[in-house]
Amino acid sequence: MFKGTNLTGFTESAEGKEFLQSFSPVTQQYLDGKFCVATPAEVESAIAKAKTAFDVYKSVTPEKKAVFLETIAEEILQLGDMLIQRAMLETGLTEARLTGERGRTMGQLKLFAALLREGSWVEAVIDPAQPERKPLPRADLRKMLVPIGPVVVFGASNFPFAFSTAGGDSVAAWAAGNPVIVKAHASHLGTNELVGGAIKTAAEKCGMPDGIFSYVIGKGAVTGMQLVKHPAVKAVGFTGSYQAGMAIYKAAVNERKEPIPVYAEMSSINPVLVLPHQLQQAISKTAIMIAGSVTLGVGQFCTNPGLIFLIENDTAETFIKELAAQLAASAPGVMLNKQICNSYYANIDIVAGQEGVTTLVAGNNAADSIKGSPALLEVSAAKFIANADLQTEIFGPATMIIRCKDQAELLAALGSLHGQLTGTVIADESDLQEFSASVALLTEKVGRILFNGVPTGVEVCHAMVHGGPFPSTSFGGSTSVGTDAIKRFTRPVCWQDCPPAFLPDALKDDNPLHLMRKVNGVYTRDRIV
Amino acid sequence: MFKGTNLTGFTESAEGKEFLQSFSPVTQQYLDGKFCVATPAEVESAIAKAKTAFDVYKSVTPEKKAVFLETIAEEILQLGDMLIQRAMLETGLTEARLTGERGRTMGQLKLFAALLREGSWVEAVIDPAQPERKPLPRADLRKMLVPIGPVVVFGASNFPFAFSTAGGDSVAAWAAGNPVIVKAHASHLGTNELVGGAIKTAAEKCGMPDGIFSYVIGKGAVTGMQLVKHPAVKAVGFTGSYQAGMAIYKAAVNERKEPIPVYAEMSSINPVLVLPHQLQQAISKTAIMIAGSVTLGVGQFCTNPGLIFLIENDTAETFIKELAAQLAASAPGVMLNKQICNSYYANIDIVAGQEGVTTLVAGNNAADSIKGSPALLEVSAAKFIANADLQTEIFGPATMIIRCKDQAELLAALGSLHGQLTGTVIADESDLQEFSASVALLTEKVGRILFNGVPTGVEVCHAMVHGGPFPSTSFGGSTSVGTDAIKRFTRPVCWQDCPPAFLPDALKDDNPLHLMRKVNGVYTRDRIV
Repeated sequence: MFKGTNLTGFTESAEGKEFLQSFSPVTQQYLDGKFCVATPAEVESAIAKAKTAFDVYKSVTPEKKAVFLETIAEEILQLGDMLIQRAMLETGLTEARLTGERGRTMGQLKLFAALLREGSWVEAVIDPAQPERKPLPRADLRKMLVPIGPVVVFGASNFPFAFSTAGGDSVAAWAAGNPVIVKAHASHLGTNELVGGAIKTAAEKCGMPDGIFSYVIGKGAVTGMQLVKHPAVKAVGFTGSYQAGMAIYKAAVNERKEPIPVYAEMSSINPVLVLPHQLQQAISKTAIMIAGSVTLGVGQFCTNPGLIFLIENDTAETFIKELAAQLAASAPGVMLNKQICNSYYANIDIVAGQEGVTTLVAGNNAADSIKGSPALLEVSAAKFIANADLQTEIFGPATMIIRCKDQAELLAALGSLHGQLTGTVIADESDLQEFSASVALLTEKVGRILFNGVPTGVEVCHAMVHGGPFPSTSFGGSTSVGTDAIKRFTRPVCWQDCPPAFLPDALKDDNPLHLMRKVNGVYTRDRIV
Repeated sequence: MFKGTNLTGFTESAEGKEFLQSFSPVTQQYLDGKFCVATPAEVESAIAKAKTAFDVYKSVTPEKKAVFLETIAEEILQLGDMLIQRAMLETGLTEARLTGERGRTMGQLKLFAALLREGSWVEAVIDPAQPERKPLPRADLRKMLVPIGPVVVFGASNFPFAFSTAGGDSVAAWAAGNPVIVKAHASHLGTNELVGGAIKTAAEKCGMPDGIFSYVIGKGAVTGMQLVKHPAVKAVGFTGSYQAGMAIYKAAVNERKEPIPVYAEMSSINPVLVLPHQLQQAISKTAIMIAGSVTLGVGQFCTNPGLIFLIENDTAETFIKELAAQLAASAPGVMLNKQICNSYYANIDIVAGQEGVTTLVAGNNAADSIKGSPALLEVSAAKFIANADLQTEIFGPATMIIRCKDQAELLAALGSLHGQLTGTVIADESDLQEFSASVALLTEKVGRILFNGVPTGVEVCHAMVHGGPFPSTSFGGSTSVGTDAIKRFTRPVCWQDCPPAFLPDALKDDNPLHLMRKVNGVYTRDRIV
């Protein structure tokens, strides 16, 4: 059923002699399909086609780009149950979760299509000429965001649709006007082939240039690095481990003549502040809510809450017991792959083995090497502050209580935190007043600060920030989810005294695209007179 | 007259035993003032104060920040002629130029003050809650840009006001809400002390926190690197040489636990396309205009036009002769310092010594080691394409003709160009039609594309892009001039389901700051109902 080819532009290509297979965490067997590792020449071909496609695609109208993105969504839906079934086998994720994720992925494509039709995302800024200005006239200056060129995308194992082949990085890069080369994730090669085929069909139907999309199969350290180091590649989107993300980031800076931006989303343990007054009113509710977030999808979310800060008192003790009971009662779940499951238990062992750490719920389930069972650890704030190893990400359904004597100790503990995607505050208004310094400090460490909810569940919208200070991402000034993700794959260009007929439409006097623009520093959709 | 101290916050400090002096390119003598190199403890103190100041300053109101910036402008003006005279001695720049640059620097401070008062630069984006949405309710999501923390600024020798102590990087960082630590430029230590004192006075008058500003004296490789590597520093602004910029950029990635963004503006040779039809109509005018730009300020601008692409024909030959005559007739001028003057001649020698390069005007003026005399070189496009050393930046009043046989060769030559701050097109409409592919390709290589003018003279406004693909800057997605320079020192934070009273003003329902915001994807200044 699976061809096992690479896709270099519109060409299915399998010139290599090495093959990969998907191993199912569900059946614990290799799945059908032998996927041919791309040769260096095939990788080169994919990049060369992307470079050529860029010359055409960067000038394709917003409407045509929007239709392309919508057609991808339709073609993915057309794959029907076959796609869901294959993804279930390859990832161990449930049918409901994957159906939901497919919807989210399609919604994301449509949201970016709408963004393109509205058009103001290009941030047109116009300072018209002032020929009479003294002592010197002012030139006519107009700027907007433009695409940067071929973008390489490394998808994530935990979101085989939404953060993979047709995921957030790809759609943001296409929307901005860039070709995309995906390094197919080795954990879901069949899913990649199906989605990749849907993208190819959509591109052909929409008359997109050959090279607007390619995917290549292979190891990150070889195939991936060839992509990252290629001079024609202009940016990288990555979601995955700290180690792989940093290897790519450093290669992009140190092993290229021209460094390029790497937007790597890597590692986050998503601290939760459970504040005393609110907790007193809702011990069980809070325990159930947090346990649900910790165990959701077997804890395999970038935003999984991995640290819970508590002020020690009787209420906190009751809460800890209830949380432990909730987690102990949660069934183990099949994890994405063996390596992730092994790492999960290995990381629990590392953290649990640190001085002062107590294991309240032991996740270790030696009988089953593919299921993650929930774990709960605890440690004092003093030990936490003193030992950065306690900030090791445990990817899976584990979390750790940090016991704080008072706000002073809480502040010290928060001060020692690394950068995070999210920070959560469970608090009523009196808590927020009393602990305002703690909330402010937590906000400094995160890309998203949220209140009385759980960090899992990342809305794809305009206001989302899925990013955060290092090491949660390699560049805390960006988001990988939501419409502003498009900015990562653009750069500003200023046109000075350009003859009107040669200006891009977005910058023309009569504003033919009806954009919101900034003219002389004032936002307006008016034409320039 | 000069104290020679460092400024660690509001404290004048001179604990070191090593001293630097400013050497005047005008008098060729050391100037008065012995400037004490900062000790590691003084550098540490400056950073510690910046960290503390950030906790206060990040919450200072936009109005108070605006007044602070305006007061800096006033205090700089209050320094009067003393400042201009010292800067003339330290830089060799003329009184008219420096008076103009002071005005530009003050204008820049006032422009950012206006930006703060208008306020919409925070890019508030709000997606209100949708509790009734199916299958899941949408949380309330609101985001805006926030400051990132202490910023280190390395000023430029060629703009002792506008790109130095109170220059574009400093004002952008302050406007965003960050403390600034300046590594004082060793070429204009007296100017730095005067401007630094004005900033200190303004900060004290405006009740700004101790640590909002510091400057430290020392070598880049020691004092500068201590700043760059410090964990509390969150970003770097740099203007200067490729070598220094890359050393800082790589240290920020490789020698820190937490990499930080470095916005380095480094190296640009600013290609000019002189197209045939327009040239035929204005040979002398074009020669005079380009020669004026090449020799302006003894060629010491980042945007100095260093490459002139011509299509070979009789008109071009006449133009080359006229340009050569113009440059040969231009008097040598005092350069910023001996090292820059030495590098100028050394780089001319490097480029002129490459295969196929002809020297039309020899700039070498061995009799005077401090004056730069204009130079004109020429080479064929074929040689230019084959030899990347011909893209060596010659900082000073030199430029090089690239002879192209036809548009195909021009396209190949442009294709081989590195990234640039600017690209200039001298063309009429028929040229723009005929050479549209060349103009498009040039646009891909630059941050600012300009028509029938000269690249020197960078307007400080909203629409400016003073940035460009590597190696002109370390990050082509940014600008160091104009109001959008503020974005470099910010990051987005999203508030999810935050109780209304605890939201930042910019994100509150009733829009108390009257900002332009994006609500549900639509730009509006309306309150949220």
